[in-house]
Amino acid sequence: MNMKKKTADLLDRIRVRAPLVHNITNFVVMNSSANILLALGASPVMAHSRREVAEMAALAGALVLNIGTLEEKWIEAMLQAARTANGRGIPVILDPVGAGATAYRSQAVATILHNASVSVIRGNASEVLSLAVADVTTKGVDSSLAVSAEMAAAAGAIAREHGCIVAISGEKDLVTDGDRVLRVANGVPLMTRVTGLGCGLSAVTGAFCAVAEGDLLEAVAAAFGYYGLCGELAHAVSNRPGSFFTAFVDALYAAGTGEIQEHLKIQ
Amino acid sequence: MNMKKKTADLLDRIRVRAPLVHNITNFVVMNSSANILLALGASPVMAHSRREVAEMAALAGALVLNIGTLEEKWIEAMLQAARTANGRGIPVILDPVGAGATAYRSQAVATILHNASVSVIRGNASEVLSLAVADVTTKGVDSSLAVSAEMAAAAGAIAREHGCIVAISGEKDLVTDGDRVLRVANGVPLMTRVTGLGCGLSAVTGAFCAVAEGDLLEAVAAAFGYYGLCGELAHAVSNRPGSFFTAFVDALYAAGTGEIQEHLKIQ
Amino acid sequence: MNMKKKTADLLDRIRVRAPLVHNITNFVVMNSSANILLALGASPVMAHSRREVAEMAALAGALVLNIGTLEEKWIEAMLQAARTANGRGIPVILDPVGAGATAYRSQAVATILHNASVSVIRGNASEVLSLAVADVTTKGVDSSLAVSAEMAAAAGAIAREHGCIVAISGEKDLVTDGDRVLRVANGVPLMTRVTGLGCGLSAVTGAFCAVAEGDLLEAVAAAFGYYGLCGELAHAVSNRPGSFFTAFVDALYAAGTGEIQEHLKIQ
Repeated sequence: MNMKKKTADLLDRIRVRAPLVHNITNFVVMNSSANILLALGASPVMAHSRREVAEMAALAGALVLNIGTLEEKWIEAMLQAARTANGRGIPVILDPVGAGATAYRSQAVATILHNASVSVIRGNASEVLSLAVADVTTKGVDSSLAVSAEMAAAAGAIAREHGCIVAISGEKDLVTDGDRVLRVANGVPLMTRVTGLGCGLSAVTGAFCAVAEGDLLEAVAAAFGYYGLCGELAHAVSNRPGSFFTAFVDALYAAGTGEIQEHLKIQ
Repeated sequence: MNMKKKTADLLDRIRVRAPLVHNITNFVVMNSSANILLALGASPVMAHSRREVAEMAALAGALVLNIGTLEEKWIEAMLQAARTANGRGIPVILDPVGAGATAYRSQAVATILHNASVSVIRGNASEVLSLAVADVTTKGVDSSLAVSAEMAAAAGAIAREHGCIVAISGEKDLVTDGDRVLRVANGVPLMTRVTGLGCGLSAVTGAFCAVAEGDLLEAVAAAFGYYGLCGELAHAVSNRPGSFFTAFVDALYAAGTGEIQEHLKIQ
Repeated sequence: MNMKKKTADLLDRIRVRAPLVHNITNFVVMNSSANILLALGASPVMAHSRREVAEMAALAGALVLNIGTLEEKWIEAMLQAARTANGRGIPVILDPVGAGATAYRSQAVATILHNASVSVIRGNASEVLSLAVADVTTKGVDSSLAVSAEMAAAAGAIAREHGCIVAISGEKDLVTDGDRVLRVANGVPLMTRVTGLGCGLSAVTGAFCAVAEGDLLEAVAAAFGYYGLCGELAHAVSNRPGSFFTAFVDALYAAGTGEIQEHLKIQ
């Protein structure tokens, strides 16, 4: 299907259905992720106690697991929520924040991938590619990989190994299921100068997957494309990070089919 | 007393006295609630360790308990802080975020109401009315109740049962002590598209109660009215959620007697 | 060295090197501190699990310890991270939020200072001076001290006792190593009406110390001066706290040598 039409349709569904997105995420971005989801039209909830995550996940259209500011108990809560989601066919998005930077983060990602079925892994190149081989560390992953064919090959291998979509944010984003590869050219560099915009994209990916009814690969690419074009619209308002973020949230709320037709760049 | 004069007087007192409002609140809104209180003229403090909550609550003009992103230890800390507040006549505001959505949240609210004296319960209709009968769940509470006489009756019953003010945010807010009912018509729908604005109103309600010296019913209605009219002022600046929130904080800082005289709608 | 040239040089180094600043900080300011550091040009990371803080601190150019919203486990994590930083000569900045207000906070600061070597203590007058004598409490510290010679004497004594820089934010900031005293006259009062701007300055102080290569006294004063002048630039855009904060983040990103030459006031 035409990706512009697909993206516009998914966005419309989010705005009509306001899917509940259950986030077990880091402290830094809880507020910004909630605002990003609300502006988009989804319904965010943040809950991490083992006393309620299974019940909350059962109410959700998507579950987003994010390992920033991680603590021991949170991993257990993530596994519990993921088991509920897996049992009900609710898509699970994993954001491996800082994987490769410390052993703890890398082990946490391995534990989650071993004990739960993840639908989408979304991160930057060094985070995602640290999952490729056990002894790859952040230092070992050259960010120049971001534009190379090697990156696509490594991402595809991870996708096939875990039976999931792998989505890597970068100058040009890469979304693959290990077979098909989509590339998204939307977005602006200033997005890396605002905290939580990567984590916010994982949350938005959850919202798109919640209404996808099937083809997650295209839904993930649609999320990336729409998010990036909202960044472009915000950059037209301001090239400084404080006012850029305000304009970005405004764009997530206001941009629709017209902007998608004009600006979406997915191949 | 005339509610416009009452509201303006309470606001002036907040700005002169800068009452300390002790918040034990959820991670999503800690930053926004602090900024909302600072803009209003109050002094926020966030502290949740059982090692210090009693000491901190004793310094405060109001205590705000909010059960979003709840964990086990936090309930114990809330009870400790509430006991101190109760012993000293410091008003306690309870925001039952998500009550009715999971058993854990509903039980937490029941535990707090059973073990502490709460001055004000503030939430949306489904949250507050989930307290009405043990087996009412969020799904069981029709939001159409929000405008009905049934809602007022249910809210009044809760208020009488717990000897407190019940305040329900909605298209038209309802504030009752189980006897008298005040209705507040200020506010704009866009406020529901920014995270933490309900929680922020609970914090602002704390600030108004801290300087009320007696009539909490009117102080709560004043808080709702002033907060809603600041939403209206912000909406005149922007109809998109990112820039709306910025304008809302600005309005909380700048609006005074003139705006209250012109816009306050409390009956 | 000329402080204007020194400040501009340090800022340039931050923007070229993007030093990693490891923050173990409070929940209220995690988002704002990250955005402040990113706008400045540094690379923030927030991590507090005892499972990874030593490894993360080892990667950092500076470690910032902030005791707001404190919990027991966090103090242990701070000590672990500080030991790593001390062993590698990484500067440690301590922000004693609320010291003097509760016994728990005062004891936490004493524990950190007893068990780790701190490079800079940054806070407001009542917080910092509560460290001067064991039985001084917040109430016992008159904020009029902020402009007095007594404050400078007390700060100097603390600096000599702990072998560190003491930096006190106020109408006029004071930075001392117990020998030399620098005074910074930048900043605007509205900065106290936005949450986390003091904590954000501690983080920015970390970024300046990360690239200081030696003279921390001047690096701390440079951080205070640059931060304050960005407040002045933001105040020229807006005198209300919501839009002021947005403009402040924009200024941290955009202000450079020209603004420093024109506005920096350090003696």
